[in-house]
Amino acid sequence: MSKEQDLGEIFPKGEKISADYFTGTAWLTALVPKDETGRYTVANVVFEPGCRNNWHTHPAGQILLIIEGNGWYQERGQPARSLVKGDVVVIPSNIEHWHGATRDSGFTHIAITNITEKGPVEWLIPVTDEEYNGVH
Amino acid sequence: MSKEQDLGEIFPKGEKISADYFTGTAWLTALVPKDETGRYTVANVVFEPGCRNNWHTHPAGQILLIIEGNGWYQERGQPARSLVKGDVVVIPSNIEHWHGATRDSGFTHIAITNITEKGPVEWLIPVTDEEYNGVH
Repeated sequence: MSKEQDLGEIFPKGEKISADYFTGTAWLTALVPKDETGRYTVANVVFEPGCRNNWHTHPAGQILLIIEGNGWYQERGQPARSLVKGDVVVIPSNIEHWHGATRDSGFTHIAITNITEKGPVEWLIPVTDEEYNGVH
Repeated sequence: MSKEQDLGEIFPKGEKISADYFTGTAWLTALVPKDETGRYTVANVVFEPGCRNNWHTHPAGQILLIIEGNGWYQERGQPARSLVKGDVVVIPSNIEHWHGATRDSGFTHIAITNITEKGPVEWLIPVTDEEYNGVH
């Protein structure tokens, strides 16, 4: 079993994501770098247990399709939503949020990310250990 | 109207698709009926063995993400492309094509379908048994 593609994964694990906007280790495969309309990208993102991305916003929203593992999605000021295989998250534009794996499980989602003249994403501050450990 | 979900499937099988534009039995779940931009839909489509859709075109293209089984994608005048889990098909706008399962396997893909003022799809004639049995 290759380290790059675990048994049961659908898409390749891809490249390790720069740690700048993530706490822990995550991997990305660009499935469609840019659609023919130029308005969105499609990627597969694999989070190792405990990994989450920074708080961030999308200028035109993002869709997550959960295909493996267990994770969390949280909008600022809201309780975290538990995510499992088969869940779909429609993230509205300009809503501050983060997503990532649970402490004990890996987590894989497809992300469809809309692009505007402002780009696909605005990264903000990390999710602190206190914030992350407080989700339940 | 069954909502059954087979073991191992990621998304619900959903509703049986009208036979008008399909040969055989297929099932559809609208994962995101319309994105906030109004420019695309996201659906999960399950084809039973031997099932394929009619020849058709998309006014602004479609993306297929194969998540289960074995299938075919064919553009008019081209050899068919064999598809397995993890494959991605970027279907250009206004290209006549069909997709579906192999004779012996089910086949499941996510479809991201761009929408224009002409709608998401123009359905054409069925893929004949001769055409279907000729792919290899």
